[in-house]
Amino acid sequence: MAAVTRRAFLAGPAIGAAAALIAPIEAATPPAKMQGPGVYRYRLGSYQITALYDGTWFLPIERDFVRNADRAEVNAALGRAFLPPNVLPVSFTALLVNTGKKLVLIDTGTAGQVADTAGVMLDNLTAAGAKPADVDTILISHFHPDHIDGLKSKDNAKVFPNAEILVPQGEWAFWMDDGNMARADAKSPVHRYFLNARRIFGDIATEVRPFRPGTQVAPGIEAVAAFGHTPGHTAFAIHSGAQSMLAMSDTVREPWLFVRHPGWQPRYDMDGPLAAKTRTRMLERAAAERMLVEAYHFPFPACGHIVKDGRGYALAPVMWAPL
Amino acid sequence: MAAVTRRAFLAGPAIGAAAALIAPIEAATPPAKMQGPGVYRYRLGSYQITALYDGTWFLPIERDFVRNADRAEVNAALGRAFLPPNVLPVSFTALLVNTGKKLVLIDTGTAGQVADTAGVMLDNLTAAGAKPADVDTILISHFHPDHIDGLKSKDNAKVFPNAEILVPQGEWAFWMDDGNMARADAKSPVHRYFLNARRIFGDIATEVRPFRPGTQVAPGIEAVAAFGHTPGHTAFAIHSGAQSMLAMSDTVREPWLFVRHPGWQPRYDMDGPLAAKTRTRMLERAAAERMLVEAYHFPFPACGHIVKDGRGYALAPVMWAPL
Repeated sequence: MAAVTRRAFLAGPAIGAAAALIAPIEAATPPAKMQGPGVYRYRLGSYQITALYDGTWFLPIERDFVRNADRAEVNAALGRAFLPPNVLPVSFTALLVNTGKKLVLIDTGTAGQVADTAGVMLDNLTAAGAKPADVDTILISHFHPDHIDGLKSKDNAKVFPNAEILVPQGEWAFWMDDGNMARADAKSPVHRYFLNARRIFGDIATEVRPFRPGTQVAPGIEAVAAFGHTPGHTAFAIHSGAQSMLAMSDTVREPWLFVRHPGWQPRYDMDGPLAAKTRTRMLERAAAERMLVEAYHFPFPACGHIVKDGRGYALAPVMWAPL
Repeated sequence: MAAVTRRAFLAGPAIGAAAALIAPIEAATPPAKMQGPGVYRYRLGSYQITALYDGTWFLPIERDFVRNADRAEVNAALGRAFLPPNVLPVSFTALLVNTGKKLVLIDTGTAGQVADTAGVMLDNLTAAGAKPADVDTILISHFHPDHIDGLKSKDNAKVFPNAEILVPQGEWAFWMDDGNMARADAKSPVHRYFLNARRIFGDIATEVRPFRPGTQVAPGIEAVAAFGHTPGHTAFAIHSGAQSMLAMSDTVREPWLFVRHPGWQPRYDMDGPLAAKTRTRMLERAAAERMLVEAYHFPFPACGHIVKDGRGYALAPVMWAPL
């Protein structure tokens, strides 16, 4: 910069910052310790939707993470998304729907019980101006821990004191069945999911309300069967006025892998072929109808549109905009 | 939902929410009036970078907005991005660089002086934990109002009391020259830009420091000539440790139009062919070197990577992640 400052091209005086560069003082503002709030609002008809970021789990990819693609293919797909190899960034975003009459939360975040780098959904709920006690209804998509753990704190206290909790009956029937648990390999993650479902729901079982796919589970919100990821896995269609969107839950997970390659079967899909069929059908419909879609593991703010191209599908994220 | 509740599949009681749906009460949390904070942090070497959203201007697209593409082509490109026709959403995001020693702001937002839907950069600076008085250095890319208006409030008060203000000498030489102003059509936006530059810089001219491209303008930040958009338009290369990024300023504007079609010449590019050449060269280099790039008009958080494909280029936005 000094070279410039020696010249007198311009009306202003020469740059005098060189001395400051040589003997700098600390910036008055220290670097922040945390990411900025993850709160993104958008309108759907008369409803206000709020994406609430919970964090990201950096999951080491094991050899068989995608059952029908080898690790080199998975790493190549990550590389095309400018992500490092061998680690899958699993993002978590819960969806808050304010119908004007009801405050509805779809899935609950991890409450810090899945990874150290996730668990800020309640902080973001606060940043969004709401309290856990304000939530009227909680809709659960399925019983994997990252979707239900936010119902309880680490010491098993209820987090949302006033919320009715609605769950897919297929999930309740599968995960709360002791025979199914007994049949699961005791060393498998699936076995842990059975135990975790009991930890989360055991002492509040009488407060939990089951629902069937195809039914309205909250004002303007319809449960949509999306089986395969888990036996009762459910998506949610949200309608207000002339507008609709589809919260796809885990039907479609990380976009660089499973939007691009809907036939890929991640180990987390309990019924891989059925999940892939459900995923492909949903992506095809979303692309054909230019639907607004959301998914729990899409990068925050976790909503956008699906584009079909020659190689598969791609996510076009929404553009951040004023409310 | 009632159909589900009549069944007794599960341990929990039947759904009893139907009555609540018939006689709803207001949700305890009213819909928010404003978008959530637009503050996104990332690391570059030892530096902390913060994207600060200022808002979005919804600009009606006039017939000749892109000099060498007709409106139908422009609308088709917007449609492919799931955006409505005839309106260009012009996003504004300023970049805060905390080097640990210096707090550097690159461009300043609009301070509400360009559109009613923009002007929240200072709110987001506050949300990011910094005050205007904390900013040590302001780097200006060029003198279009949306980049410099944030230096002053609507009543012409200085906003950043302690900041040195560094500007491209080519911009100062062009816009502060009364002969150039006299040659501009008095009814054109360009003429207004000349007047606005005098409003912003006139009474602080002795505090403004010019710089030349190719020089270091702040610790680790190098000014990069990117002429065409305006005569002295400048990008900034930021280096810390082994990492680098390129703040492209207005070399590349809205990605669905000008990343996809770098040869398109928006009316805002004062020298259309030169700007297109500069843009194409920069995109080509960014894609080839897989550089992290940022641009003032990219959708918040305004950073990502450039992918080259058969049809041109595309922006791959960064994935929102914990700090």
